[in-house]
Amino acid sequence: MADTTTEIPKHDVIIVGAGPAALTAAIYTTREDIETLLFERGVVGGLAAVTDKIDNYPGFPDGVEGLTLAQDLQKQAERFGAVIELGEITAIHDEGEYKRIESTSGDMHARAVLIATGSDYKKIGVPGEQEFYARGVHYCATCDGAFYREKKLVVVGGGNSAVQEAIFLTRFASHIDLLVRSTIKASDVLQQELQEYVDKGKITIHLNTTTDLIEGEDKFVTKVTGTKDGKKIEFDVDGVFVFVGLEPNSEFVKNSAVLLDEIGFVTTNQDLMTAIPGVFACGDIRSGATMQIASAAGEGATAALKIREYLEGRAHPIQN
Amino acid sequence: MADTTTEIPKHDVIIVGAGPAALTAAIYTTREDIETLLFERGVVGGLAAVTDKIDNYPGFPDGVEGLTLAQDLQKQAERFGAVIELGEITAIHDEGEYKRIESTSGDMHARAVLIATGSDYKKIGVPGEQEFYARGVHYCATCDGAFYREKKLVVVGGGNSAVQEAIFLTRFASHIDLLVRSTIKASDVLQQELQEYVDKGKITIHLNTTTDLIEGEDKFVTKVTGTKDGKKIEFDVDGVFVFVGLEPNSEFVKNSAVLLDEIGFVTTNQDLMTAIPGVFACGDIRSGATMQIASAAGEGATAALKIREYLEGRAHPIQN
Repeated sequence: MADTTTEIPKHDVIIVGAGPAALTAAIYTTREDIETLLFERGVVGGLAAVTDKIDNYPGFPDGVEGLTLAQDLQKQAERFGAVIELGEITAIHDEGEYKRIESTSGDMHARAVLIATGSDYKKIGVPGEQEFYARGVHYCATCDGAFYREKKLVVVGGGNSAVQEAIFLTRFASHIDLLVRSTIKASDVLQQELQEYVDKGKITIHLNTTTDLIEGEDKFVTKVTGTKDGKKIEFDVDGVFVFVGLEPNSEFVKNSAVLLDEIGFVTTNQDLMTAIPGVFACGDIRSGATMQIASAAGEGATAALKIREYLEGRAHPIQN
Repeated sequence: MADTTTEIPKHDVIIVGAGPAALTAAIYTTREDIETLLFERGVVGGLAAVTDKIDNYPGFPDGVEGLTLAQDLQKQAERFGAVIELGEITAIHDEGEYKRIESTSGDMHARAVLIATGSDYKKIGVPGEQEFYARGVHYCATCDGAFYREKKLVVVGGGNSAVQEAIFLTRFASHIDLLVRSTIKASDVLQQELQEYVDKGKITIHLNTTTDLIEGEDKFVTKVTGTKDGKKIEFDVDGVFVFVGLEPNSEFVKNSAVLLDEIGFVTTNQDLMTAIPGVFACGDIRSGATMQIASAAGEGATAALKIREYLEGRAHPIQN
């Protein structure tokens, strides 16, 4: 539908998203004078910006507030010339040397595009879930499990991920109530392993149990209420970990030539390039992502180097 | 030669090296109560520790001193329980569940090993090179090129890397003298592109020219002296970039089952595992490394998650 008689704005690099992966890539491209425009439809800093305390981002011995890290990443990218626009990219079209981007600011062309839109944790959508996010309600055991040493937890979910993370969280928690809406869908091996923790009294399984309400005092979770076989059931706990899946933010490329895996993550080659030449992906949107800020930022740096190679029209030999 | 009648010390994870990749991995493993011992034969913090200012490590908007970042990474890993031993690992043997490590502290067993020994830039070995390291003498254009906007530079080397980085540095530098010991060994395509920059007056090539001496004033480089066709030749410049190759620190695994690429970098699969099950590699020692601290730290985080999966004896489904 684009009117080819009208010139549309041209950019060197457009980055979709402005989380840690996107901002790190922008630090690298703009520091090398590669003009870069970022589009963010939500919060600059992504999931990191709405995380209370980040304990394992390397370089901050006492941890760092998520919002502080997000703002510092933004400052660093803007210091070198990155421009962040609030708006949404709705489609990517491969038109050869230039990719055409449809956005809420109109169409534009970019020589290279980096998809760094991240993933969201699926929510259960109950009262208290949003209110206590990151202050008792968590979605990443690797990130936040260590804050719950000798504490009591509820884990919500019945798939492989929920069972495995519940087992993992027994490293820290004194006891875990596992709330499963219907029945456990995890693999046989995992179910056998889970039984060992049930036998040891570390995990109690509650099947056919919905999670209805998360309550707290002084901004911290104290109680989770559910319904089991039609009856109210209460859990006095210090935190809730929800593992009901991830939602990669890839809907805007579903009708493009960019390939997605079965869950909807963007697949790339070892140079982080997608199925469209010149369109790259990094961070939590990429198939194989670890949902860790350090890994996402690291991939952002690598993606920027690969984009430079691509823009130069040749491989950039780093190692000889 | 190990006496199997004697018990040797057992560890969960031994990390070879204590640079950013190693320390980030240790932050992750120890925070999850996986006992971890690091061996460092040189400086804790690796190349980062001896870098004056790091401008592109994500999270520090005004840059960070290399030594500060290194010390903070060390503090963070030690806060969670990582133990750093000064000493050298000299061999790795695959003995099944446990790997046997030969070290300057004797033999020990580890359930998993992470090779994170990094790479060194090859030196030319002339007076002033060490004295002005990171204060006018550099080995990474991506890292330090942006400090030389509108400055004059010498670039040393004649291979693909030297030619490509010289071209890259013209983004910043007003003029570059390229000092080539014999003749240019770069690809035809690169040589043609180089010629364009010579024609534009941005790069001057000096063949059969050795680099003999780097001098400076007030701790900054001001002059490089070489010999061309038996005659002394002087260059008044602000910096020197040396691109004569990388030396991966992999000699200690050369007689093991760990596979190396043609240059000596450790090859891994997508889970960062080497050819020995339970032996992983990440950061600048890994084939495909970018020589960027952010990428190395990111791989350290990813490697730690993969090591945990391995120790648990099953895949850790991060995405379902």
